[in-house]
Amino acid sequence: MEGLQQEAWALLRAARFGVLSTLSVRVAGYPFGSVMPFALEESSGGLIVLMSGLAEHTKNALTDPRASLLVLEDGKPDADPQEAARLTVVGNLERAAATAVDHARAVYLARHPQAQRNLELADFSFWMLRPLHARFIAGFGRMGWLDAATLLP
Amino acid sequence: MEGLQQEAWALLRAARFGVLSTLSVRVAGYPFGSVMPFALEESSGGLIVLMSGLAEHTKNALTDPRASLLVLEDGKPDADPQEAARLTVVGNLERAAATAVDHARAVYLARHPQAQRNLELADFSFWMLRPLHARFIAGFGRMGWLDAATLLP
Repeated sequence: MEGLQQEAWALLRAARFGVLSTLSVRVAGYPFGSVMPFALEESSGGLIVLMSGLAEHTKNALTDPRASLLVLEDGKPDADPQEAARLTVVGNLERAAATAVDHARAVYLARHPQAQRNLELADFSFWMLRPLHARFIAGFGRMGWLDAATLLP
Repeated sequence: MEGLQQEAWALLRAARFGVLSTLSVRVAGYPFGSVMPFALEESSGGLIVLMSGLAEHTKNALTDPRASLLVLEDGKPDADPQEAARLTVVGNLERAAATAVDHARAVYLARHPQAQRNLELADFSFWMLRPLHARFIAGFGRMGWLDAATLLP
């Protein structure tokens, strides 16, 4: 599994966007997908996201922290996405504590400088998806589950 | 909302891939995202998918039919996906009944001819995501919920 772990980590470092799945409040209990930029916090393996209080996924996360983020290999925009490597990180979404906001902002803005404009709007806040497990599909017949500890390099 | 409905429908007709969210069996109750080709069944608004019995999402759907499919506007591969139109169709995944398989196969293969090779493998089956509600984000400040009836043209 070591090769898979290294490839999964490289994918998390390279990607800037994913699809977040949360548990819907509006359509009770149904899983709900939404587009989500993220930044990897490399020391913990946490995925930092910036969420609007108006967004469905934020309402969902405030009610139930269970979530996953699907990350696709970049740079193959016209390819069949079923042939790209992809990783689903499953974990809990936690709002950044007051003491962690400065660090989250720095890591996030280094990856998404244009997000500065959102920080100037009311009602955006930093959250972190803390991985529990991850499902990695590296390619045909090369796949497996990784747990949070083995995901870290 | 009529303009939004028309745009949402056009998006479903144009797209070939989405991200399916299901409820994980392996990581109990967590929402789980995976890449999913689909084909729109235009008379019902149902989304036909072809799923492998080995895949996580299939194990999930067999246990709980609640799901959503996030569909992104095509043709903007290098753009910020937060600036693309996107639609999250929330509904139930149902395995195609024996009497519906021929129709599902025809609609699906018209959209994904290369999937013929999967049909020759054991353990692939057709399912349909039957929409209940859909969340459409057409662009900045232009968004709303549609129910299944208003999604159809």
